[in-house]
Amino acid sequence: MLDTWTNGPAKSAIVDFVGRVTTEGPDYVEPDARVAVFDNDGTLWCEKPMYVQLDFLIRRFREQAETDPALRDTQPYKAAWTGDLAWLGGAVAKHYQGDDSDFAPLTAAILAAHQEISVDEHAAAIAEFFEAARHPTLGRPYTECGYSPMVDLLRYLEGHGFTCYIVSGGGRDFMRPISGPMYGIPPERVVGSTVSLVYRDANVYTTADLQFVDDGPGKPVRLWDRIGRRPVFAAGNSNGDIEMLEFTASSARPSLQLLILHDDAEREFDYTSGAETALQRAANDGWIVASIKNDWKTVFGA
Amino acid sequence: MLDTWTNGPAKSAIVDFVGRVTTEGPDYVEPDARVAVFDNDGTLWCEKPMYVQLDFLIRRFREQAETDPALRDTQPYKAAWTGDLAWLGGAVAKHYQGDDSDFAPLTAAILAAHQEISVDEHAAAIAEFFEAARHPTLGRPYTECGYSPMVDLLRYLEGHGFTCYIVSGGGRDFMRPISGPMYGIPPERVVGSTVSLVYRDANVYTTADLQFVDDGPGKPVRLWDRIGRRPVFAAGNSNGDIEMLEFTASSARPSLQLLILHDDAEREFDYTSGAETALQRAANDGWIVASIKNDWKTVFGA
Repeated sequence: MLDTWTNGPAKSAIVDFVGRVTTEGPDYVEPDARVAVFDNDGTLWCEKPMYVQLDFLIRRFREQAETDPALRDTQPYKAAWTGDLAWLGGAVAKHYQGDDSDFAPLTAAILAAHQEISVDEHAAAIAEFFEAARHPTLGRPYTECGYSPMVDLLRYLEGHGFTCYIVSGGGRDFMRPISGPMYGIPPERVVGSTVSLVYRDANVYTTADLQFVDDGPGKPVRLWDRIGRRPVFAAGNSNGDIEMLEFTASSARPSLQLLILHDDAEREFDYTSGAETALQRAANDGWIVASIKNDWKTVFGA
Repeated sequence: MLDTWTNGPAKSAIVDFVGRVTTEGPDYVEPDARVAVFDNDGTLWCEKPMYVQLDFLIRRFREQAETDPALRDTQPYKAAWTGDLAWLGGAVAKHYQGDDSDFAPLTAAILAAHQEISVDEHAAAIAEFFEAARHPTLGRPYTECGYSPMVDLLRYLEGHGFTCYIVSGGGRDFMRPISGPMYGIPPERVVGSTVSLVYRDANVYTTADLQFVDDGPGKPVRLWDRIGRRPVFAAGNSNGDIEMLEFTASSARPSLQLLILHDDAEREFDYTSGAETALQRAANDGWIVASIKNDWKTVFGA
């Protein structure tokens, strides 16, 4: 177990924690309460050079611009149509710096792309995307961009009576079709951002109304909403995961917080942008930091 | 199995369905897709003479009127304070006839009662209520007002690889503390109506904002939201369950719809009010109707 992890402080901390909570004694945690939550983008799979879901949506914008040429002069359809990834990346980057001038039309287009699609059609479109799409620089399908050591960790925890959930800022209905094949996590244990759904003619449809952004303080809210228990294990990689880790740390039971550090330009990417505060909290509060470079023998497996 | 059910058409239909979907052949359903959803009030436990949650809330209103005497002149606190159950029952009954003149202040008071309670305190208050409260006419604790044949059915389905969920118009956070002990259903498989939650100081709090009414067309929306699969088995007892049963019936897989008929004044209650349309749909669409009088050997067990 955890063979893809280097013997070192991160692996030791995980093994020690799991040993303590599964052994009779003061730190024992009953199996029902062994709930583990995992962020997805940057924690279970690669989030660079852009969110996988953004790639899916850009292709959707391009289809829309194909059908309706008038869109080609308007952002973000213009960027999608001309392949201007810099504009798209800039819109997200500027958003995190407090400038939503490009993010606002991007968000509006994302929501509009969800207007009235049945949940079955939506899942089929996503499955089709994942069959064809490849990561732009890693040269492998997105479905092979999950981190092998994290999949090992999911299985290790499950082998010790934990139940694992994804709690991601990404779209819940975008992750569900691949969470089973990639991570062994079924749709009912995927929590994420959502548009509102509507019932019509014996079917459920997506809408263009944003329902919930599952990020930052939304994460503990949404995970309580879905699970009704406070987790004892949480893994994330960015500032958007702070509240989820903090909520887990405030459990009356022993708990472990894990932060993935992207420091491996050779095998993945090297960045701390968007994770500065989380890393500071980890240093202050005893959260475990797993360095991709030092703690993982492999990133994506064979 | 199903020993509390009389040998008859309802039990036969259930046993036949479960046999078909668990046997290799054209009707086989893989275990992952064996999702069963159950309404709670009137389907898993007694909903008369009033919803159990309303009893809980009336006690809360009485506490509030105790603390703040000014409330005693205002509905619904006045009714709670004076024990005027007729006013409270009337408010709900008039709502179902399209008159919200009393239901509106009742709803406002229900929401106000949820202002800023931590989810742990909320669960503790509910657990305390269930320790003391007894059903007003059946002379037993509410926790013994679950229907034994339905608990048998939950275990029967689970024994055949089904995963069972509660999908109720009742408050999710009201049901969660007792769904385990009463039905063997853990909190993460309880879906219901909710107030919005908020994160503050490493904890999650209820608010006075209504988030979702899990009734009628809200039921398939909410169950998809939570489960991400279309159920193949659904049980309900009222018009508020129609869309959930209809959504299940539209599955590409074999499915079964079960409607509980309250026709046993001696052992429980005899009423069809609020279920007229559902019973008509059952007759038209081949939904199975289980008569409490004829199909259940016992209602509440020993």
